[in-house]
Amino acid sequence: MILPKGLVSAGDPIDFVLPGHRVFLGCDRPLKLDCGVELSEFPVAYQAYGRLNKDGSNAILVCHALTGDQFMAESHPLTHKEGWWDLMVGPGKPLDTMHYFVLCVNVLGGCMGSAGPSEINPETGEAWGLSFPVITIADMVRAQAMLLDHLGIEKLFAVIGGSMGGMQVLEWAASFPQRVFAAVPIAAAAHHTAQNIAFHEVGRQAIMADPDWCGGEYWRYGKRPHRGLAVARMAAHITYLSEPKLHEKFGRRLQDREGLTYGFDADFQVESYLRHQGISFVERFDANSYLYITRAMDYFDMAARYGGGLANAFVDTPIRFCVISFTSDWLYPTVESRRIVHALNAVAANVSFAEIVSNGGHDAFLLDEPKFHRVLTGFLGGAAQHRGLPKTPTG
Amino acid sequence: MILPKGLVSAGDPIDFVLPGHRVFLGCDRPLKLDCGVELSEFPVAYQAYGRLNKDGSNAILVCHALTGDQFMAESHPLTHKEGWWDLMVGPGKPLDTMHYFVLCVNVLGGCMGSAGPSEINPETGEAWGLSFPVITIADMVRAQAMLLDHLGIEKLFAVIGGSMGGMQVLEWAASFPQRVFAAVPIAAAAHHTAQNIAFHEVGRQAIMADPDWCGGEYWRYGKRPHRGLAVARMAAHITYLSEPKLHEKFGRRLQDREGLTYGFDADFQVESYLRHQGISFVERFDANSYLYITRAMDYFDMAARYGGGLANAFVDTPIRFCVISFTSDWLYPTVESRRIVHALNAVAANVSFAEIVSNGGHDAFLLDEPKFHRVLTGFLGGAAQHRGLPKTPTG
Repeated sequence: MILPKGLVSAGDPIDFVLPGHRVFLGCDRPLKLDCGVELSEFPVAYQAYGRLNKDGSNAILVCHALTGDQFMAESHPLTHKEGWWDLMVGPGKPLDTMHYFVLCVNVLGGCMGSAGPSEINPETGEAWGLSFPVITIADMVRAQAMLLDHLGIEKLFAVIGGSMGGMQVLEWAASFPQRVFAAVPIAAAAHHTAQNIAFHEVGRQAIMADPDWCGGEYWRYGKRPHRGLAVARMAAHITYLSEPKLHEKFGRRLQDREGLTYGFDADFQVESYLRHQGISFVERFDANSYLYITRAMDYFDMAARYGGGLANAFVDTPIRFCVISFTSDWLYPTVESRRIVHALNAVAANVSFAEIVSNGGHDAFLLDEPKFHRVLTGFLGGAAQHRGLPKTPTG
Repeated sequence: MILPKGLVSAGDPIDFVLPGHRVFLGCDRPLKLDCGVELSEFPVAYQAYGRLNKDGSNAILVCHALTGDQFMAESHPLTHKEGWWDLMVGPGKPLDTMHYFVLCVNVLGGCMGSAGPSEINPETGEAWGLSFPVITIADMVRAQAMLLDHLGIEKLFAVIGGSMGGMQVLEWAASFPQRVFAAVPIAAAAHHTAQNIAFHEVGRQAIMADPDWCGGEYWRYGKRPHRGLAVARMAAHITYLSEPKLHEKFGRRLQDREGLTYGFDADFQVESYLRHQGISFVERFDANSYLYITRAMDYFDMAARYGGGLANAFVDTPIRFCVISFTSDWLYPTVESRRIVHALNAVAANVSFAEIVSNGGHDAFLLDEPKFHRVLTGFLGGAAQHRGLPKTPTG
């Protein structure tokens, strides 16, 4: 159980008190989830960087990916590594905190302080576990909109996100077109393909096959399905990288040895790297959250929700879009971004599209990719002008 | 423990007696493995279809893939499904058993009667388990060559195989150029890439993470790491299919239900299919064999063995090659076949190359792909003429 400072329920088995902001929402009006369940008084944890200007017009919401969290531009409280978008968010960076107020919210279903399977169900006083309702990308976005209400932010200057973050961006644009000025879905797709679902299903099966998962109630037995979750992470991690990147980074190079050992140790660097990815992941992520969030992604299919036509989701949209993909991303390849662009074109939306040449694979949006950073900086600068944001830092 | 009929060691926990042929090789002269270990008196199980002609010139060796076995053109003794190359081997089929004598040998390290971790170590009277030496593709081929010696077949008319079978074909060509007339590596590569190794490592970690693996000695405890092996199979299976094939076959269609269930059951057909692939695989395959065979594939790197130049492996080769790839194979993509072709061109070998347009993915070589079948039939017909094989059936 990980809870933000000052919001610890008595009797919880607390490992760690999270820094940062957490609020309880849905107290007056519960959040009605797509599955039909209503969530009331549920926690939402978020971080904020920069200052909101007086008219509240400079807020950027960054939506994080499957295993991301709100600590995007600071040392991570559990791993002590730099934030996942440290390259992007800060003074003088593309999301310049001298000009913008940049928010990031732990998604619903997550494990860093927002309502999810490892949080306490107020009705029972116990962790939700698998009794937590299955949530959707749209549910995540509704919870974020409730947080904006709470913070008094009527309209976002921009909503930006990569991967599952990009799905949330699309959902924001479709569900709250009047609350978004500019939208940047990066390395995303408007639906999960059969292959995407298949990879997620492997991860879920790996978790559920671990006896320490205990039918989803591992915390009751003082266990954690570390082995299953590590395997899930390893399988997923391969899909985040490109073959050229793996070749460049590792090739067939051996790990700290002169020759093959004719055994099952990690002879190859790529094996050692993958094992490390698996082992380090389980220290910061909850296995049930992994189930819930992958499920939300699998369920994502905007066209289906809008009568089979993706364009229907964006009719009369006033939003300026910048759709970004990466050439070597095979998880959400450029063809998926093009589908989004075609849908936006079909409703005469204001959309620019950039396919960035990179061998970084899907994870390119997390890397130091100067062309990508230039595209984003340029788009935001132009949009800021249209929005009439001052050129001087907010103070 | 699965042993061919009549070759059952007393006291073994036998589940099933395999039909077919099995011989013990290495009795006079042991097989020296790449790891340095010598195997003596080891079993090799094989199946044969058609008749060997008088001068022994019509033998085709088919090399099977990772999870294949020798039962390629008959009902499988464990699953009772049709053989994995039933489409290809038989009277009037591309590998026409009216003309050719077609052999298939369970690979070293396998679990269908050839020496492997689930077979008995004659020195201890117990199953080898992880004390079985780590074998290589070259070791597999050497064992096959010993079988040919035993059968009195001096030279193969052709050696053919897909995937890991294609690796064995390349190894045959490089190690025994005088014993092969024609060689057909299909959907193969001359080395395992970092991505290939990474996917295999996920599978191995899934198996080893299963507590029922028991450090590789599961048989001692009456257990089998079914869950881990199923996850390994599921992950691997995705790599055998193409995204277009998955889209065509399943898309986002639901499994026997009207709408999403907001749970973790197999809502989508692709989930149900993958789960079935995992569950059915464990009934016929040994987890330790999976470790050994994937390791052999990872270790495969012909260029490294031949001083860094793949062409060196084929200098002065007298063999006629036909290299075949499939457009949608992303596991061993066409670029890998082209590398083989370029190496063969560099030594002025006799080589033809066909990239077959198919959305079948890597598994296209197992499917009803008429263009592929025509290419293979044509090449074998031409080679048979050059070899001077009679046009009338062998009798």
